[in-house]
Amino acid sequence: MVATKTINGIDTGAFEETCTMIKSKSEMGKARFRVNNKWNSGGNNNSAVQGYYAAGQELKHASSLHYTADEPPLLLGTDKGANPVEYLLTALSSCMTSAMVYHAAARGYKIESMDSHFEGELDMRGFLGLSKDVPMGYQKIVAEFKVKSDAPEKELVDMYHYSPVYSMVSPAVPIEVKITKI
Amino acid sequence: MVATKTINGIDTGAFEETCTMIKSKSEMGKARFRVNNKWNSGGNNNSAVQGYYAAGQELKHASSLHYTADEPPLLLGTDKGANPVEYLLTALSSCMTSAMVYHAAARGYKIESMDSHFEGELDMRGFLGLSKDVPMGYQKIVAEFKVKSDAPEKELVDMYHYSPVYSMVSPAVPIEVKITKI
Repeated sequence: MVATKTINGIDTGAFEETCTMIKSKSEMGKARFRVNNKWNSGGNNNSAVQGYYAAGQELKHASSLHYTADEPPLLLGTDKGANPVEYLLTALSSCMTSAMVYHAAARGYKIESMDSHFEGELDMRGFLGLSKDVPMGYQKIVAEFKVKSDAPEKELVDMYHYSPVYSMVSPAVPIEVKITKI
Repeated sequence: MVATKTINGIDTGAFEETCTMIKSKSEMGKARFRVNNKWNSGGNNNSAVQGYYAAGQELKHASSLHYTADEPPLLLGTDKGANPVEYLLTALSSCMTSAMVYHAAARGYKIESMDSHFEGELDMRGFLGLSKDVPMGYQKIVAEFKVKSDAPEKELVDMYHYSPVYSMVSPAVPIEVKITKI
């Protein structure tokens, strides 16, 4: 019998078992995530998340999750939810946070708290097609983390590089990350 | 006096005025979007969205918006919300949808309905650090749109290329887009 050990809210025994299983059968590492989006009007549309595929099985979240996107009035919307580029920062901040939390647990470091502020700079001339020299997306993202942990800063930096969303966004956008240990 | 004309829920007169203003004063196109993230436990963390900067002003969404991220039990979480890569698909689907809706309005095309299904394929060996040959993020994203509109498919394809999130993700991940006119 293996004793259960939880670090940072992660069952490290189960984490190790998952890694061992995927190492011996790489098919088990394959996952598919899905969103159904429905447009309502203007900048307002809804994303629904429920089914996904992982560890060789079709699975479902406990409940159907719904996320409303919109634009504020200044951007000609009705302000019913965050806009798509704010959802991108939500994805990025949550992913970098989880990457550090999971990898810290695997390495035996305790995280007591982690808070972050993300800011992306964008020039709307890109989206509006008013200038070909301006990128459509963020020109730069600044991420500031405050972390209470026994993990050295250098290792935290190594850990967030495992974040799937960071790896998908960083080739296109410079992401400046500051980690302050508190 | 300019007559108000609304297409796809977008006030096209206001849209034109916004473009004219930004064309004459490029500073007005600069925007900054922000998220504050707070980690709770394991894969569970919360993103809060409220303040942003646009058109030379510090502004706030009508209400403070909160988004919970988590992982399902199989991925060692407590399933309180979508996971970060599902938030990425939310950002991508909402952004590509809005890009088509806004640009269609600007070009005078009417969109009656737009629904989409997004699926991303991921190999968890990347995130877990079990293989250096496997990317951390999605290896491929398939996006299927069903659109009722008088806009030709070719123009819809041109339009989604203005999507900020598409432009940030597509350099790292092949995105296969199918548009079916219904």
